[in-house]
Amino acid sequence: MTGTEPRALADAIRFLSIDAIERVGEGHPGTPLGAADTVTALFTRHLKFLAREPLWFDRDRFVVSNGHGSMLLYALLHLSGYAGIGLEDIKRFRELGSPCEGHPEYAPAHGIETTTGPLGQGIANAAGMALAEAYLNRWLGPDIIDHRTYALVGDGCLQEGVGQEVISLAGHLGLGKLTFLWDDNRMTDDGAIDLALSDDMAARFRISHWHVQEVDGHDIEAVSAALLLAKADPRPSMIRCTTVIGRGLPGVEGTRAAHSARIPASLSEAARKALNWPHPAFEIPDGIRAAWRAAGERNAPEFDSWTRSVAALPPERRRLLDRLREGKLPEGWDAPLRTFRDEAARSGKAQSGIALSGELVDRLADAIPELLSGAPDLEGATQHKRKLKAFTADDQGGRYVHYGIREHAMGAMMNGMAAHGGVVPVGVTYLVFSDYLRPVLRLAAMMGLPVPFVFSHDSVGIGRNGPTHQPVEYLASLRAIPNMLVLRPADAVEAAECWEIALQNRTGPSSLIFARQALPAVRRDGAGENRSARGAYVLEEATAPRRVTLLATGSEVALAVEARRRLEADGIPTAVVSMPSWELFERQDAAYRREILGPGTVRVGVEAAVRLGWDRYLGEDGGFVGMSGFGASGAEADLARHFGLTPERVVEEVRARL
Amino acid sequence: MTGTEPRALADAIRFLSIDAIERVGEGHPGTPLGAADTVTALFTRHLKFLAREPLWFDRDRFVVSNGHGSMLLYALLHLSGYAGIGLEDIKRFRELGSPCEGHPEYAPAHGIETTTGPLGQGIANAAGMALAEAYLNRWLGPDIIDHRTYALVGDGCLQEGVGQEVISLAGHLGLGKLTFLWDDNRMTDDGAIDLALSDDMAARFRISHWHVQEVDGHDIEAVSAALLLAKADPRPSMIRCTTVIGRGLPGVEGTRAAHSARIPASLSEAARKALNWPHPAFEIPDGIRAAWRAAGERNAPEFDSWTRSVAALPPERRRLLDRLREGKLPEGWDAPLRTFRDEAARSGKAQSGIALSGELVDRLADAIPELLSGAPDLEGATQHKRKLKAFTADDQGGRYVHYGIREHAMGAMMNGMAAHGGVVPVGVTYLVFSDYLRPVLRLAAMMGLPVPFVFSHDSVGIGRNGPTHQPVEYLASLRAIPNMLVLRPADAVEAAECWEIALQNRTGPSSLIFARQALPAVRRDGAGENRSARGAYVLEEATAPRRVTLLATGSEVALAVEARRRLEADGIPTAVVSMPSWELFERQDAAYRREILGPGTVRVGVEAAVRLGWDRYLGEDGGFVGMSGFGASGAEADLARHFGLTPERVVEEVRARL
Repeated sequence: MTGTEPRALADAIRFLSIDAIERVGEGHPGTPLGAADTVTALFTRHLKFLAREPLWFDRDRFVVSNGHGSMLLYALLHLSGYAGIGLEDIKRFRELGSPCEGHPEYAPAHGIETTTGPLGQGIANAAGMALAEAYLNRWLGPDIIDHRTYALVGDGCLQEGVGQEVISLAGHLGLGKLTFLWDDNRMTDDGAIDLALSDDMAARFRISHWHVQEVDGHDIEAVSAALLLAKADPRPSMIRCTTVIGRGLPGVEGTRAAHSARIPASLSEAARKALNWPHPAFEIPDGIRAAWRAAGERNAPEFDSWTRSVAALPPERRRLLDRLREGKLPEGWDAPLRTFRDEAARSGKAQSGIALSGELVDRLADAIPELLSGAPDLEGATQHKRKLKAFTADDQGGRYVHYGIREHAMGAMMNGMAAHGGVVPVGVTYLVFSDYLRPVLRLAAMMGLPVPFVFSHDSVGIGRNGPTHQPVEYLASLRAIPNMLVLRPADAVEAAECWEIALQNRTGPSSLIFARQALPAVRRDGAGENRSARGAYVLEEATAPRRVTLLATGSEVALAVEARRRLEADGIPTAVVSMPSWELFERQDAAYRREILGPGTVRVGVEAAVRLGWDRYLGEDGGFVGMSGFGASGAEADLARHFGLTPERVVEEVRARL
Repeated sequence: MTGTEPRALADAIRFLSIDAIERVGEGHPGTPLGAADTVTALFTRHLKFLAREPLWFDRDRFVVSNGHGSMLLYALLHLSGYAGIGLEDIKRFRELGSPCEGHPEYAPAHGIETTTGPLGQGIANAAGMALAEAYLNRWLGPDIIDHRTYALVGDGCLQEGVGQEVISLAGHLGLGKLTFLWDDNRMTDDGAIDLALSDDMAARFRISHWHVQEVDGHDIEAVSAALLLAKADPRPSMIRCTTVIGRGLPGVEGTRAAHSARIPASLSEAARKALNWPHPAFEIPDGIRAAWRAAGERNAPEFDSWTRSVAALPPERRRLLDRLREGKLPEGWDAPLRTFRDEAARSGKAQSGIALSGELVDRLADAIPELLSGAPDLEGATQHKRKLKAFTADDQGGRYVHYGIREHAMGAMMNGMAAHGGVVPVGVTYLVFSDYLRPVLRLAAMMGLPVPFVFSHDSVGIGRNGPTHQPVEYLASLRAIPNMLVLRPADAVEAAECWEIALQNRTGPSSLIFARQALPAVRRDGAGENRSARGAYVLEEATAPRRVTLLATGSEVALAVEARRRLEADGIPTAVVSMPSWELFERQDAAYRREILGPGTVRVGVEAAVRLGWDRYLGEDGGFVGMSGFGASGAEADLARHFGLTPERVVEEVRARL
């Protein structure tokens, strides 16, 4: 063994992984040891990256979709010279505070392009990255944006529904710079893959128009040759890399146990013998370290050339690129929202909630050229395409993605687009279908990705389609997600305010929740202060010292306003509080919150959804008008009566407490 | 046209659909009109059913997976003579109170085998039904159980990830009595199918070992011949039925608009002319009606023969069958749980939560032969297989399903098994992956299906795998689902109590939530009253008039017990309330709830999850010790300290309020 043989480079990955897993007493050696050769081929010969410039905008993206193989990634990043992943960090693999966490956590400055672990998400993120690249490539030109996206993929990612959706859609959209390296080790946590799968997976890709190759994943030359061919083919590529799981652990490799085996000292010693690796734990021989560092510097000429291309851009173009890299919106992007608020306040027209959002996105799309819209086969019902061209295999400059009936892939690709940067992904579907992409919402929140998710048809107000299509538990379940900003505007003015808030929110996702039905205008003030930004505010104050506080969101604000009118007419001083966002309200100081909530007054919450969570604002004696079970199929007015979503019911609930 | 030509029978479906949609002013004519011929072939010649015996246990099951085509099903059921779907019901299509709801709602007594609408669910339910049939067929014998499962399938169901998972798994498991009729109309809501799909779908099925045929879906003879071949083939079958969406609506058929077109009078008149259907709205000529009724009576001889077979069963076998049909558990099924409680109370041993559940299911499986367990590639980590044989293509008498890495299919198949009846499906995965099957949980709750879902690894207590695998928002989001019973036991005794409650719960699903880590014994009373059944109870009362009430669930109960010990030692009389189920607690009377919650005492909730919902029990000044954001990767003890999940923190939270 000489220090710079490719196999030795791969063994360095193996032993960093073995040593880290041995030290902490747990981990998943199966993937790092099995796929070490495959990724060595990628990192040392093909991946366009520069370890000292992890945020190089035109770098190739690399995703470890089988995130339990996290040590593989940490070893790669450390060896190739990423400053954020030091040897001490690897020695603290899985210890609190180490960047080498159990599963990779999004940290692009460290070289970690996305959070993975929940299977299937990583390859869908990768497809989103490839889509973002394709759009930016057409828009900004290949001198500025021309890179590839690679994902290491395990069997789990391919079995998961979201993975299957992505295979189908990435092929359809012709994302030709996307390459999957399938770590085909024929072993899952339960045992041999044929316990649960007998598909011809290579054929599965072929029928979705992928370029498919099959190689020995331990043959670095063969993998490298396949990567060359993948680059030359215009289709997305899947390279089936046949490997042995846990390769190098005598008696364990190739078995079910390898997936998440603990590594006692005896086993790591045996591995050292078997692979002829005489070095102490965590020691990498100089020659190997130098070869890896060279790999991490390999693309310095490309980086310099790119830097020169950027420097040569006309000033306006240069500013645009800087803005996109920094994730900033263009100057004046919010002007259309203010105009819209003014118009809406003047017109006072009742309008469909989701149509309002569609019109807002239509105007925002003019102001924000990096905004890419899309929906899972609900273009007509959600109206977020309007004048945008479709993004297709033949025209990747389009800005509206027909995701097909694939909510989960849509969401996970949006996360990937946001993680890539340079684009603002907007996706819209019915609120009930947010459950289909719920794993995505959690990951967007965990990664802190600025993704606006739009959910329409937000209550029994949709009427006759019935309970399957009527959300009742979704507001609560979205509010439960940490770092998810839930916004449910009451009318056109609040709709514009909430869109402004969602696009300003750069540290996490937003869920914009819209009614299908018409929202009467409750706000007649226009483009002044964004009142929704405080989360809750007094929309209509009582005409005498307040005795009653009605707290409502979205379509129920108008209902509360009507109930207030009746109560005031009966001499009961009543305020209406509009609460478009609980999360924003919680950020206000105690004095403001007290002022709004009016402790000591009779408080009644009004929301066409379950009560869960409302008690925080209602006190122990508060009332609630909403839903206590699923909806039903019927005319909207019949349902409102049936479920008691009426001003009469609100008045009753108040009177019972006076 | 004579009344009994097959095409006329199909036209009867078309015009009932047209008339109902015209009358109410909305609906989805595309599928009822497009697939009318296809389903006429099935119902009049192949489907084993007897309209007057909708609950015949050995009937073929039929699922309209593209549930928006609900009028197709209502027309079929009405015409063939199901008493539950009268003409007046169809005239009230989509009106509040009609069984003819916007989407089909589970009502087996009416002939509606499952709730559909969210796409992909129906075909997965159908696969679950076929799996239940296969198991019961092996167990009870083909004289008693030998029927097929059919699903009408649209493009949406096949694009959805869960649909793709099911294609793969049903082929792998060799569910040979499952037949999909794909209504291949090449049109989706956004427009032509090739906007978002270019897969060769027939090949997609072939690579998963399905028998595939392609026919003209409007050619009743051709569909019928294909159905015959499907029956003869041992593999699951997919019949691609090429159709024209909205067939019969001049100017609309074959277009995107047909999917959910409104039907004005002029259009229904034009359809009457085009199809030579001169009859007034909602009128079916006698000949056609008679032919349909004959179809609904067609299997009377089979039913009689089956009834005779059942009557001829030995008494014990007969009682077994009756029990299974009624969905009752065997006499004494709960004896093992009581034994377990006694043993656990005596031993006082701390044990892993999910291992406890595994041991309970192991014992329950002996007592309940219809219990079918399974997990999505987490057999080792969740331990719910133990001595059960695997259900495989070669041995469909097995009782453990290796679902593969397909949580969503697992859940939806479990719903289908429960809807089929005769089996008790148990499925287990990590709590974080419950998001992957969340659409299923909602439908189980909506249908009122008695499905126990088991979710393990329920908090940051799992340690080093990190935030992707650490639930924090899931208890809240499960509690938000109406009719979902959420059970989070604190120790071995509560684990057995909660399993008893879950299996007794016949009107909806249960989520059984278990820690991975060891749960110290907090209950030392054995097989007496099931104290968990009241949802919350005083585990340890204060030694003097109570000043403090600690409310906790699951693994945090032991933490509260330790905090109480410290508070009591400092002379602060403190009670600990264990709250394994909020839903059950809400069913108790006000006096009991007051007694438990101790209003006027300092109340602090303790749960390693977000606070959302807790305020209901804490009052306005209550405290909470839990999580306010996502977890982290680290040793369990480090995480507990880092996130303040400690007795010290609970004591502080109390002291700040005294």
